[in-house]
Amino acid sequence: MELKNFFSPESVAVVGVSRDSNKVGHVIFRNFIDGGFQGKVFPVNPNADQILNHKSYPSVLGIEERIDLAIIAVPAELVLRAIHDCKKKGIRDVIIISSGFKEVGNYALDRKLENLLKKCRIRAIGPNCLGTFDAHTKLDSLFLPRYRLKRPKEGSISFVCQSGAVGSSILDLATEEGYGFSKFASYGNAMDVDESDLLEYLGNDKSTKVICLYIEAVKDGNKFLRIAKKVSRKKPIIAIKGGTTQEGAKATLSHTGSLAGSADIYFGAFRQAGVVRADTLEEMFHYAEILSKCIVPKGNKIQVITNGGGYGILATDCIVKNNLELASFSKDSIKQLRKRLPPLVSISNPLDLIGDATTERYKIALDVCMKEKNIDIILLIALYQTPLITTDIVDVIIEANDMKKKPIAVVSAGGEFTEVLRKNLDENNIPTYTFPEQAVKAIAKLVEYYEKK
Amino acid sequence: MELKNFFSPESVAVVGVSRDSNKVGHVIFRNFIDGGFQGKVFPVNPNADQILNHKSYPSVLGIEERIDLAIIAVPAELVLRAIHDCKKKGIRDVIIISSGFKEVGNYALDRKLENLLKKCRIRAIGPNCLGTFDAHTKLDSLFLPRYRLKRPKEGSISFVCQSGAVGSSILDLATEEGYGFSKFASYGNAMDVDESDLLEYLGNDKSTKVICLYIEAVKDGNKFLRIAKKVSRKKPIIAIKGGTTQEGAKATLSHTGSLAGSADIYFGAFRQAGVVRADTLEEMFHYAEILSKCIVPKGNKIQVITNGGGYGILATDCIVKNNLELASFSKDSIKQLRKRLPPLVSISNPLDLIGDATTERYKIALDVCMKEKNIDIILLIALYQTPLITTDIVDVIIEANDMKKKPIAVVSAGGEFTEVLRKNLDENNIPTYTFPEQAVKAIAKLVEYYEKK
Repeated sequence: MELKNFFSPESVAVVGVSRDSNKVGHVIFRNFIDGGFQGKVFPVNPNADQILNHKSYPSVLGIEERIDLAIIAVPAELVLRAIHDCKKKGIRDVIIISSGFKEVGNYALDRKLENLLKKCRIRAIGPNCLGTFDAHTKLDSLFLPRYRLKRPKEGSISFVCQSGAVGSSILDLATEEGYGFSKFASYGNAMDVDESDLLEYLGNDKSTKVICLYIEAVKDGNKFLRIAKKVSRKKPIIAIKGGTTQEGAKATLSHTGSLAGSADIYFGAFRQAGVVRADTLEEMFHYAEILSKCIVPKGNKIQVITNGGGYGILATDCIVKNNLELASFSKDSIKQLRKRLPPLVSISNPLDLIGDATTERYKIALDVCMKEKNIDIILLIALYQTPLITTDIVDVIIEANDMKKKPIAVVSAGGEFTEVLRKNLDENNIPTYTFPEQAVKAIAKLVEYYEKK
Repeated sequence: MELKNFFSPESVAVVGVSRDSNKVGHVIFRNFIDGGFQGKVFPVNPNADQILNHKSYPSVLGIEERIDLAIIAVPAELVLRAIHDCKKKGIRDVIIISSGFKEVGNYALDRKLENLLKKCRIRAIGPNCLGTFDAHTKLDSLFLPRYRLKRPKEGSISFVCQSGAVGSSILDLATEEGYGFSKFASYGNAMDVDESDLLEYLGNDKSTKVICLYIEAVKDGNKFLRIAKKVSRKKPIIAIKGGTTQEGAKATLSHTGSLAGSADIYFGAFRQAGVVRADTLEEMFHYAEILSKCIVPKGNKIQVITNGGGYGILATDCIVKNNLELASFSKDSIKQLRKRLPPLVSISNPLDLIGDATTERYKIALDVCMKEKNIDIILLIALYQTPLITTDIVDVIIEANDMKKKPIAVVSAGGEFTEVLRKNLDENNIPTYTFPEQAVKAIAKLVEYYEKK
């Protein structure tokens, strides 16, 4: 399905731009101006001549230019009228931010709107939604002010989210953590465009490498399964399901007006479709980090390199618990490492370069591990608190990673000093984690995804 | 056991202070000076007259004043000589930073040192350790430079850690995250003072509210069990065990020279002793956060208050999965909430104050929940991205918490704006989390600890 206008329209009308700066329509319009949207944007408000130095129109019909997308932020009872106007104006795509439909029990209005959209052949995201954000075009229908919700930098993760609040806080958090996004969509009640349509579109979107999905209930199970199968062959889909318990499912009813089905059915469908399942939002982030950055691993044999014994042990425990394999060095690698590393370093897995590890030791370890055929994936733990690791360890890791021979994930934990080095790796396409368990669980999903594919 | 001198000595000798600023002894000595240690500190180096503007002594014997604690950072082969000198000087407590003993297979030297310590009746932490840090007295034997490893602020969490690297990176991370610490000890090979001795001491330490413990192997199982039982009746102990798999256990051998025992035996002992088990370092933090801050809950019935539907649902799922109960409002509370909250808010659990929630709505919800007898614990989710929550929501939450009627845990996720509000709650003794699952798992441990106690 063609959903291009929802992310990169050339011209947008915001319908319902109040002069009150706290109101939803106003915030949206302001975000277009402040956010650097490259297309044209027109405010619609019958009671104003000018808003934020832009000429205001009584309805979309008053705008002379072609409009690719209308964002509707008027009270529920005025939405039908706005849609009629869009139809007359020839607008084919709308985002309906307004709430007050089936999610509050207003089924009559809900049906009317649905019928009208069908009759007019207008494609809609919403109602009762946050809408869309595109980090590249700066299309931004999110009605949350930029000082409260930062927008993420350009990147390759796209996120489809049934819940507006989950979506907005995650976007904000992702910005803080430095994740790069491509597209975001919160589709609310999914009256027309649903999660499957968005999945299909993002599956074909060149700037999206990984699709994250928060769902409570899919609208059409068969459609979802069919599309998810197709898309996950092209790129990873990571999904988290809200309402996996009876009590949680009950709560979804008052949230988006849809009753979540049995968790087992969903999890089964995920498995069947090759969708990577996350159980928490935190996991979703960690999985997206590795799946958006790493190359395809040849197998599941992990080599741990560390300068912290305890971290190496925790990583080892976690590798075993996640049914991954601990790699073993070949005789030749053992010989080389034995020759080039100090006698106190025991050549095993984890390869503990010990507390006085230098950058040079990491270089030797990486050099041998990159060539070793028995190793598929490298989990590199670098605790930067010890003084003999110099900051150019970052270059050593980047150089190894740039060879594109096997995936490398890095674990480091600490404060400011650590954070500078972490960000540097991060920007050079290396997945970074704070705790060994996070990295190992993410590696397990990387392996799982490519095994199934 | 009296371990006071390891944390609040009045005078300290650092033995082996090189003039080379990268060397361990030098870094330790510098940290005493830069860190603001209140007692006296003397550098020992036979080849220098002055170090960092302090008179240097050829051995501890040259120091005229009484010395409460010697920190020994000379090469392994010189440690015995240093201990002899300490004995002559009348020093009863030493921290041996030096490595090169049983952890590298040097069993002969190891036995000699052990016998000498016994003969001299000198209490020792180490060898092969980071030593101790006290956030209150600024005693600091950590040989890691302050620009790489920040020291945490004063607080009530104490951390005993077998692994130096785990300990140091966790201290650094904790500082970054704003956790307050009381005492830290990394005891390395545990030749003399072991985890149980430290536990016992911290159990009696007034400034410690929660004890965190990372262990690979305890030295004396019966002693640990006996002391842990006694201490956990006074205050919570949170323990994480490294080497819970066969492969992980094998790796502990080359780490601290001790073979980790079966995980089941450890987990059984934790249960028996009332020790709260954490499976990851991340969990350990989250549990310490709630156990150091919250009052005793009356039961396990949780009420969720949220302005984000999806977060409420994820929290609900997690409450059920963690065998906690969802609280139900009494008729009277329902009546009050119905009267005071807008009709769109459905009065249930989670109590979803919906996307346009104001601070006032939170105030009403908290007011009723604090009085409701069917609610034992409140999980409050506040996503600050929506504009109608004003920043004084922080005061509303603090006021409710200050009534000390029931524990409140807060979930918020986001960037800068969120972080300011989060820190404010944090400083007012309210546990804060990023994701609902983190908070719920921590609440489960809070309930578990007080049920067993």
